[in-house]
Amino acid sequence: MNSWIQPHLFPPPKGHQLNSSNKMVEFSQLGDNEVFSAFTTYGTIALAKVMLMSVITSFFRITRKAFDNPEDVPNPHKEENIKKFLRKDDRVDRVLRAHRNDLENIVPFFCIGLLYSLSDPDLTTALWHFRIFVAARIYHTIAYLTPLPQPNRGLSWLIGYIVTFSMVYRLLKNKLYL
Amino acid sequence: MNSWIQPHLFPPPKGHQLNSSNKMVEFSQLGDNEVFSAFTTYGTIALAKVMLMSVITSFFRITRKAFDNPEDVPNPHKEENIKKFLRKDDRVDRVLRAHRNDLENIVPFFCIGLLYSLSDPDLTTALWHFRIFVAARIYHTIAYLTPLPQPNRGLSWLIGYIVTFSMVYRLLKNKLYL
Amino acid sequence: MNSWIQPHLFPPPKGHQLNSSNKMVEFSQLGDNEVFSAFTTYGTIALAKVMLMSVITSFFRITRKAFDNPEDVPNPHKEENIKKFLRKDDRVDRVLRAHRNDLENIVPFFCIGLLYSLSDPDLTTALWHFRIFVAARIYHTIAYLTPLPQPNRGLSWLIGYIVTFSMVYRLLKNKLYL
Repeated sequence: MNSWIQPHLFPPPKGHQLNSSNKMVEFSQLGDNEVFSAFTTYGTIALAKVMLMSVITSFFRITRKAFDNPEDVPNPHKEENIKKFLRKDDRVDRVLRAHRNDLENIVPFFCIGLLYSLSDPDLTTALWHFRIFVAARIYHTIAYLTPLPQPNRGLSWLIGYIVTFSMVYRLLKNKLYL
Repeated sequence: MNSWIQPHLFPPPKGHQLNSSNKMVEFSQLGDNEVFSAFTTYGTIALAKVMLMSVITSFFRITRKAFDNPEDVPNPHKEENIKKFLRKDDRVDRVLRAHRNDLENIVPFFCIGLLYSLSDPDLTTALWHFRIFVAARIYHTIAYLTPLPQPNRGLSWLIGYIVTFSMVYRLLKNKLYL
Repeated sequence: MNSWIQPHLFPPPKGHQLNSSNKMVEFSQLGDNEVFSAFTTYGTIALAKVMLMSVITSFFRITRKAFDNPEDVPNPHKEENIKKFLRKDDRVDRVLRAHRNDLENIVPFFCIGLLYSLSDPDLTTALWHFRIFVAARIYHTIAYLTPLPQPNRGLSWLIGYIVTFSMVYRLLKNKLYL
């Protein structure tokens, strides 16, 4: 039994009925909140994208035989394998940089976006913040890994950055509690 | 219809009074939510573990005298100390990689786990997600720093990864708000 | 006074209408919580500071002509430019280390601080946690980028670390849900 919210209204006014509006209030603060639902979808997609970078890194490490740790090398008991495969690789380094860039940008987006979602923003405005950010970051990864010539990567980074700062602006403009 | 919260049903029994339990409900919805309480415990432990990596890095930097910044070197006014101690060290680099791997995996787990906790999952299912993730990541750190031979580290990483994607799946399966 | 949740009281006064104050309560429970409002302000400032590091990195990459990716180099079709500008630079590396240190410290602060804010802490205590953390981290960045001699950077890191673990302690001391 979910007893998270058991508000209580006692006794309810006569003739009081659970209408959909009351239900909203009483039963589900976040579940019924459309901005929060949208944030859940887009925030989850953005973070799943970040995590996929790990798999891409592993793929290039294995196919290109370029490892950071001696124990990861195939047949690590052979000294020559360690010498041969414990090395840097351009392709692997590129994925690592793209992954780091995601951590630097998507994690702050998620944290700020969470606070923004809870600050009662306009639904349409919020949706377009989330949509543009996620699209820009997916394009950023494509531009980084292909690689596409600049300013493809630079612009997609900038768009995500501006979207995040637009949420920062709204959060700090509305009320500053210092 | 979102049945996230399943509140009670009125009318309340006669003689019902606001007892301390009701008060709790009023002041803190989240405090009474068992999944959220469990997430608070496991999420905090996981992040405290990430932060301990900084101390381990400092320990190896100091004991092995391997620094990144000239101002960190002992007696940095001596030119020879800077030449000697501004260097890479295998042990330090290993801790830095383990720390980065934590940021890449534990931070997304936390963000996704927070949304998951608020999506009214089954308590037992949620608890096992959190327990397995935290145990796998502690083992991952031990496997990385010892180091243990593969596939110790690889498997513990994979388990944490699967747990996180299991939460992603639940979040995106239930309702996609695009 | 914790006025986080002000569920409505019945029976409502006659002639009761949804005024803006009631609306606030209904649509945004968290908006009335002072600790959460303070966390929103300080958390947003801290993350905006992290994101500014990207701009500082770009500034030094461009002014010092030191790039990681061939496509970022000015006139990348000239082979000689790639040879010349695809290089490490002390200044750029320093900003990258400061940025990474922020991710290692400010992101965990945000995640733990969010849970802490929702655990009904004393407002004044919470405010001082947030204020000291943000001030320490801003000083940390100044000390890192100037660079100031140690222990300026070390101490500011330590202060932020202690503040975060003070919140961890409160979260795990109050109730451990395993």
